[in-house]
Order: sequence, then C-alpha cells, then structure tokens
Amino acid sequence: MSPSRLERLAASLQSSDLSAVALNPGPTLFYLSRLRFHLMERPVVLLIPAHGEPALVLPEFELPKVDSFPFKVQAFPYGEDPSEWNAAFRRAVGSLGLDGQRIGVESRHLRLLEFHHVKSGAPLAEFPDASEILAALRVRKDENEIAAMRRAVRIAEQALSDTIPSIRIGMTERELASELLMQLLKNGSEPDLPFAPIVSAGPNSANPHASPSERKLQVGDLLVVDWGATYDGYISDLTRTFAIGSVDEEFRRIHQIVQEANAAGCASAKPGLPAAHVDRAAREVIERSGYGEFFNHRTGHGIGMEAHEDPYIRGGNPQLLETGMAFTVEPGIYLPRRNGVRIEDNVVMTEGGAEILSNMSRELQVIG
Amino acid sequence: MSPSRLERLAASLQSSDLSAVALNPGPTLFYLSRLRFHLMERPVVLLIPAHGEPALVLPEFELPKVDSFPFKVQAFPYGEDPSEWNAAFRRAVGSLGLDGQRIGVESRHLRLLEFHHVKSGAPLAEFPDASEILAALRVRKDENEIAAMRRAVRIAEQALSDTIPSIRIGMTERELASELLMQLLKNGSEPDLPFAPIVSAGPNSANPHASPSERKLQVGDLLVVDWGATYDGYISDLTRTFAIGSVDEEFRRIHQIVQEANAAGCASAKPGLPAAHVDRAAREVIERSGYGEFFNHRTGHGIGMEAHEDPYIRGGNPQLLETGMAFTVEPGIYLPRRNGVRIEDNVVMTEGGAEILSNMSRELQVIG
Repeated sequence: MSPSRLERLAASLQSSDLSAVALNPGPTLFYLSRLRFHLMERPVVLLIPAHGEPALVLPEFELPKVDSFPFKVQAFPYGEDPSEWNAAFRRAVGSLGLDGQRIGVESRHLRLLEFHHVKSGAPLAEFPDASEILAALRVRKDENEIAAMRRAVRIAEQALSDTIPSIRIGMTERELASELLMQLLKNGSEPDLPFAPIVSAGPNSANPHASPSERKLQVGDLLVVDWGATYDGYISDLTRTFAIGSVDEEFRRIHQIVQEANAAGCASAKPGLPAAHVDRAAREVIERSGYGEFFNHRTGHGIGMEAHEDPYIRGGNPQLLETGMAFTVEPGIYLPRRNGVRIEDNVVMTEGGAEILSNMSRELQVIG
Repeated sequence: MSPSRLERLAASLQSSDLSAVALNPGPTLFYLSRLRFHLMERPVVLLIPAHGEPALVLPEFELPKVDSFPFKVQAFPYGEDPSEWNAAFRRAVGSLGLDGQRIGVESRHLRLLEFHHVKSGAPLAEFPDASEILAALRVRKDENEIAAMRRAVRIAEQALSDTIPSIRIGMTERELASELLMQLLKNGSEPDLPFAPIVSAGPNSANPHASPSERKLQVGDLLVVDWGATYDGYISDLTRTFAIGSVDEEFRRIHQIVQEANAAGCASAKPGLPAAHVDRAAREVIERSGYGEFFNHRTGHGIGMEAHEDPYIRGGNPQLLETGMAFTVEPGIYLPRRNGVRIEDNVVMTEGGAEILSNMSRELQVIG
C-alpha cells in the first residue's frame, strides 16, 4: 500500500526542521482529511506533528465531524464564548509539546485569528512559512485527481456550450454570468465554484479581473468569459473570448495572436523545463506581434483543489515542471478602455509534454 | 450631507490610539469602496490612515480598478514576481509614515500573507486588533442596507418555495442542494452566496454544520435546510425544518419546541438589552422542555455583508442591542445520530423591537 497523504506529510516534516504544521480550513486540510469546516469567526485548526497523533481544535458542536477523519485525531473542543478559545488552543498545543518549537504555517491561508490562538499556546514557538512543503505535497496530481479535473473541465465546457444560445445583444454581463452559473450547476458542478465567473465585454474585457457589471453587450464588443467548475473538490479554469457581431479588424487580429500564444505555451511545456519557459514561449508570440506591453500578467498558474496554486507560470520562475503537475496557459492582450482577449486552457504534464484537458474551440466565435 | 463611510472610519481612528488600519479584500474593504478583489496568492491591502489619503497595494494589472474607488487613493502596484512585492508594501507604508505606529488589523480577515508584507514595511509597528472599531462602523444598518437584506430574504424564501415541489423521497441531499442553488440564482441572488446551503436529513440533521451528502431522503427523516441569498452585497440566512413523510412523535415535539424558542427569542429583542438576553429567552424554552443539552450552539449572529458578524447572540455577551442591528435567531435541538431541528429567522432592531424580515411558514411541513 502506498503511504497515506498524512504519512507523506509526516515524512516531509521529519526531514525538515519543523516540528509540526498548523492548518486552518482550506485545501490542504481537505486534501488530508476530506473534511470541510466553515472559515468564519470560530477558529478551527489542525495541528499535525512530525511524530504522533494530530490535534484538532474546533467548536464543540462540530465534534460529530471528528468521527469522519480518515486518521486518528485528538479533539480539543471549545464552547461559544470566545474567551474560552485560547484555553482549548493551549491544551492542544501543550499536548503536542510544541512550545519553543518550529510550527510551519501556510501564510496565504492562515489568518491572524488562528495564528494568535495557536501562538497563545506556544508563545516561544517560531512560525516559519511551510507553504513550499505543503504545496509540494499536493503539486503532482495522481490519477484520481486528474480524472476529477478532467471531469471539471467537461462540466465547464458543457455549461458554456449550453449558455451560448442564450447570449443576446443587450443582455448585461451579470445576466450572462447568472445563466452560466446555473448551467454549471445543472451540468454537475459542485456548488463551491473555484471562483465567480468573469463575464466582461467591451472596455471591461480590458480588465483581466473584472467583475460582471450591469453593462449591456453591444455590437463591436469582445466578450471574455473566464469560468470553471468543481468536481470532487477539484477545479477547472478556462477562458474563451467571443465577438459580439462585427468587431474591428484589430480585435480579430489580437484574438488570432492570443490563440497562437496559447498554442505556443501549451506546446512548449516539457517535464524538466522551468515554468518560466512556458511563460516565455507564450509571451514571445505576443511580443513579436508588437503587443507585448498589453500582456500584463503571467501566463498561468497551477490548478488542483485551488484555483491558483503551484506551479506559477511566470517569467523568472525556476520551478521545474514534473509529470502530474496541472496548470493553466492563459495569455491575453488587453487594450485599455477598448477591448481585451484571453484564451485559457488547462493542461497536465505527462512524459511526452502537456496534455490539454480542454478541447472547446479556441476560434473567435461571432455571436449575434 | 452625512459623512462618508471613509470619513466615519477616519473619525473613529482619530479618537482611537491607532494611526491606521490595514484591510485585505473582504467585507470592510467592500463596505468602504464597493470594490472586490480576489483573495488569492497576490496580496491586496488598503492602508487607511487616521489623517490623509489611503494607500493601496495591488497587482499592476488590477490598476484599472483604482479609478473606480469612491475616494482618492495612492496606488502602489507590483509585478508578477513575488520577490518584488515587499518593495511595493515598503513604499506604501513609508508614504504614510506608519513604521513605529499602531496599525489596526482585522484578525479574522487578514492573512499572514498580507500581515508579513505590511510588517516588512513597518518592522517597528504594532498591529493591534481593530475588529471592534471596524465592526462598529458596520453594525447599524442604514435604510439602503436593510432594503437590500429584505430583498435577500425575499429571494431566499422564493427560491425555497420553488424548490419544495421537486423534493422527492430517495433524492440525495446534494441533489436537493443543487436544485436550491439554481433556484437562488434564478430568483436573483448574486452568485457570491453567503454560504453553501446546508441540506441535511436524518442523522445528518443532528450536525448543525453538516455538508450536503450522498445520503438519500427517507421516510421518517427530519430535513434541515439552512440557506441564504445575496443581494447588492447583503445576505440573508434562514433555516426551516421539514418532515419526510410520517416522523416520530418526539421529532414533531422538538420541532414545536424550537418553533416556540424561535418566537420567544424574536419577541425578547429590544434596543438597550444585551445580546445575551435574546439567547436566554430562546434557550429557556428549550431548557424548560428538558432538551437544553441538545441545543449546543448560540442562538444567533449578526448579519449584513457577512454571514456571521456582530452582534453575536450568545450567553454572556453584554453587547447592547441598538436600532439598525440585524441578526439571526436560530435555536435548534439536535438528537445525536437521530434527527435535528433548527428554525432561523432574520431580524432587524427597531425602536419597538425586532422586526422579522422573513415570513415563510415555520410550521412543520410534511413532504412526500
């Protein structure tokens, strides 16, 4: 039997200088336990030591969930009065003898709320960032994980296909986003979507992270749809760009360039090459065309249980691609106050190169 | 003209011992700016000083959003290489002269990611918790906010009404949750729901924070549905409990008791009384009936832009109720491994008492 995820983490910790890691509700906790907790005002923390049984601090009324853990945990419940919470944390940290030790944390997930509570039990401990160790645990996807991502891609593609017939000139970005969301759920996405879909047209499409607005679709707009589904906790994250009616020649041209940049990025990915190599390959196409300054973000990011995770496909990132890594390739060109284009696919590294999980057409489809 | 939200915050800071607050993307940032940013690996922080113009650290490609701020901010953009990010934070913190000062933080929102970056620019600063000041800013809802919450309640109620006809014996909790979600969107909820609906039946309903599972609805189950909608950034958060076919006499009895506890809680709320008073009123009904030990959570929590915020309706909370405060009243009885009941309403404090925003029937409705 292959080692469990918890065993792999414990082994990583044993070969590091960390005595434990402190996890709050989020993808790593879910990866290890398959359990979800609310991330709100009541702190939930799983302390995983390099040796021995993990400790879990949680609200008393959540105790039934402890039976569902796939490994033994010692539970330290607390009641509804926040003034009791530190005591539960002190007991948990004390039971593992962690004061004065090095307790790893995930900086992008752990809030000051949990941090201060853990620290109250271990005032002499250090809290180095353990993001690398925890990302490494999750970065190479196994067959089941890839199958789930493949399914998340299919659901997303089908949802957009089912949405396209309802796109009308004059409908708002928000209306379109709502319809897409319904189609995502209808097609089997879990309710916990990777992110709220981006539906942005005309000038809004020139903002890569636009929120859907009340602006109506107009002839001449480019329409960027950046959307994804969740299946079994794993996500997809795709982007396609459409033309609303007849659009300027230049917009058709930048779409063509981005399409080529996307293909070049996907084709360039090989195990053993640095992540930066993929960024370079995609960016070069856009730079050669003279639009380099309008591609103002990295080429992609890892995906899995998070919409953004390792490996980041950006210039200067020396991280070597390995089989099983999954990431996006999503070059774009954004002409400020005019229109933008992005085309995003999801790939998984195999020995032979990047296998593209998404196969929806990347051609500029004209609507209306 | 009444002072803007930013002016109110600046005035609070001026009468506190804080020189500034540091906010990451979340409800307070949205309350002040009406802007949303992704909460992922790229840190976004708005530094608001007691005096002067706020500073915003953000990814370069998000710069277009700066024009949409309702007040002037000085932007400190950074590129895609994380090794540059500290420099942007140092410039921002330096421009406000915050090193060595007291910079307030929201512990339940700020992550170590943002905290460490801000601290890199202000190594001698202190970072006290400013949650109370920031919660006080938002705790009394104005007319527009109450109107939005009222609408969020209507959307949620209509969505559940539209879902009920499709409830069938043998359908899974997840299927029902998906249908409810679709109805929420169809009825006009924003995609960013306050929380994933809880749909839990039979033994699962005895777990107040259950996630919808593959378990099928069976005759004899109680079915707890805890759901909400978002309208204009404001949320609703309701719970109703149903009977699937004929259920045990005891389950009908606990439903009746919880219904009375809910009514007693709502009736007890008056401006000037402590939040704990409402908890006591609801809890007493359940304790008198002999089920006190099975009501293992507080009676409610504030609502607004967050699903959980001040005021918390729990024993021991001395916070005085004020007009404009909005909160849930949601007593429950949970019989472990058997069945659970919760009935939750949303109220807003008026001079005369709690106005109940939700008016969907609280009677035990039998389905199937």
